Amino acid sequence: MQGLLDVVEPSGVTVVGNVGDDLEVAGLHVSPDLDTLLYTLGGVGDEERGWGRAGETWNARDVAAELGAETWFQLGDRDLGLHLARAEALQRGEPLSAVIARFADALGIAAGILPATDDRLRTWVETADGELPFQEWFVRLRHEPDVLGVRFEGAETALPAPGVLEALTEAELIVIAPSNPFVSIGPVLAVREIRDAITNRRVPSVAISPLIGGKAVKGPADRMLSRLKGGTGPFQVTQCYLDLIDALVYDEADGEVELDVRPIVTRTLMTDAASRRRLAEAALEAAAVPR
Amino acid sequence: MQGLLDVVEPSGVTVVGNVGDDLEVAGLHVSPDLDTLLYTLGGVGDEERGWGRAGETWNARDVAAELGAETWFQLGDRDLGLHLARAEALQRGEPLSAVIARFADALGIAAGILPATDDRLRTWVETADGELPFQEWFVRLRHEPDVLGVRFEGAETALPAPGVLEALTEAELIVIAPSNPFVSIGPVLAVREIRDAITNRRVPSVAISPLIGGKAVKGPADRMLSRLKGGTGPFQVTQCYLDLIDALVYDEADGEVELDVRPIVTRTLMTDAASRRRLAEAALEAAAVPR
Repeated sequence: MQGLLDVVEPSGVTVVGNVGDDLEVAGLHVSPDLDTLLYTLGGVGDEERGWGRAGETWNARDVAAELGAETWFQLGDRDLGLHLARAEALQRGEPLSAVIARFADALGIAAGILPATDDRLRTWVETADGELPFQEWFVRLRHEPDVLGVRFEGAETALPAPGVLEALTEAELIVIAPSNPFVSIGPVLAVREIRDAITNRRVPSVAISPLIGGKAVKGPADRMLSRLKGGTGPFQVTQCYLDLIDALVYDEADGEVELDVRPIVTRTLMTDAASRRRLAEAALEAAAVPR
Repeated sequence: MQGLLDVVEPSGVTVVGNVGDDLEVAGLHVSPDLDTLLYTLGGVGDEERGWGRAGETWNARDVAAELGAETWFQLGDRDLGLHLARAEALQRGEPLSAVIARFADALGIAAGILPATDDRLRTWVETADGELPFQEWFVRLRHEPDVLGVRFEGAETALPAPGVLEALTEAELIVIAPSNPFVSIGPVLAVREIRDAITNRRVPSVAISPLIGGKAVKGPADRMLSRLKGGTGPFQVTQCYLDLIDALVYDEADGEVELDVRPIVTRTLMTDAASRRRLAEAALEAAAVPR
C-alpha cells in the first residue's frame, strides 16, 4: 500500500479493507486490519511491531492485567483512544465506513479507506479442536492450530460499504494485496456484490503473491495454501482468485511456473521504500494486461 | 473513610457506595464513586485532583479528542485499564459487587466496598433547562444549573447488593459520610430495603455534615440544601436524614443549633491524616448515643 501510494496519486487510490477479523474487546469494536491501514497510511504506525501505534504506552493494559482481565488481545493507550472514539460513534449510529473516513481525514490520509462492508461479518476458523473466532485462533493461539476451513459469518447478507462498488467499477486497475488469501482477502471477496463486481470487471485485476520461495513472509498463508490448495507456489495462489485476476505478481524465488494468468516476476520482499516502490511498479504493469 | 480506617480495624468496616452517578462512556461502565473509593482506599488515587489515579497518563483521551470524540468525561489510561477489566467482567455476567470485591482485593484493600445495588440505578437531575443525567449536569455543565429536584431511575425495583443488608444489620455503628445528601447519599437511600434497614436499625446511626459555616467544602451541596431544604445549617442536613440518624457531626463554625438528634460538634475540615482521624473519632462518639 505504502509503495503504491508512492508511485501513484494517493487520492486516486481506494483501499477496501477486511473486517472479518473485527472483534469486540470489553465491548469496544476493534477493526485490526482497518486500524493498521489507518496507522500505516497515517504515518503513526509502529513499523517494527507491525500493528498498533508508534510511541505507544501500555498503562491501561497493565492495570487491566493487574485486575485480572484477559489481555491476550492487546490495546495500547493511544490505540484505545481510537477505540473509544469509534465505540462512541458506532453507538450514535454512525456506520463504520463513515467513522473510518473521518479518522482517515483526521490522520491526513489522502487515499480512501473503506471497510468491505458496514454489516457484521466475522471470520471463523475451523481447526481440529473445533471452530474458533478468528482472533482467538490468530492472536491467542498464535495461529498454531492447522486450519481445515474458513467460514464468514454474515457474508450471505452483507452489503458492500458505500463507495466500494463505485471504487471497483471506476478503477483503472484492481490490485489484490499480498495478504493471506484465505483470512485477509477471503472475507472481502465473501461479500457477494464485491466478488461479482470483480468477476465482471472491465479493467485488469492483479494479485500479488504473499509467498517468497514457497514461504509466507509472515503468518500462516503457506501452511494454509499447502493444506487447502495442495501447494505453496504461484499456481496455488491463483487458485484462490479464480476468475478474479488477470495477472499475478510473484517472487523470482518461486521460479518459472505455468499459470492461467499473466505472470509478473520480480522481487517481492518489502524491506524499505525502494523495495515497496519496486513491487508497486510491478503490480502497475498489470494495467497493460488485457482483461 | 481514610480517617475511619485509621482508627478502627479496616476489615470491620464495610463501605456502601453510590452507583446513581454511574454512566457509560463509549459503552464502558463507569462507577465514579466506587472507583474513587477503590483508588483512595487502595492508595493509588490522585489526592490533589480528587478523582482518578495518581501518576495518570492521558494518551487515550488525547487521541480520542484528535479523532473527534466527546471527552468531557475524562478517563486516564490507567483508569481505562480498570474500565476494560470491569466491562469484560460485566459482559461475562459477573455482578458489579463481585467485580468491585475482586478489584478491592487486587488493590490490597481490607475494608469491604459494596455498591448499594447491582441493579441499574441512575440519578437524574431536574433543572430549569430540563432533566439531565447526573454526569451531564455534574461534569459537563460543572453542576452550574440549579437543581429543582432529583430522581433515581430504577430505585423502585433495585435490590441491595449481596452483603449490604448484612453489613447494616451486623454493624455496631452506621456512619453516613459527609457527601452530598441529595446526589451521593440519596441514591443509596433510594434503595428501599437499604432505607428500611437503616430506619429499623438496632444500633446508632450518625451522619457527618458536609457543611462548614454553611458552605460546602466542594460541590453544590450548599446550594442544593438552600433550595431544597430552605437553609444551609446542621438542621437542614438532619432534614435529609429523617428517621435515619441518631446524631449529627457538624463543624464548630456552624454554631449552636437545636436539632432532633444528638449534636457532635468538632472541626470537620479534612486536610491531613490528623484532621481525618479527629473527624472519624468524633463520628465514633455516636456509638454511645442511644438508639
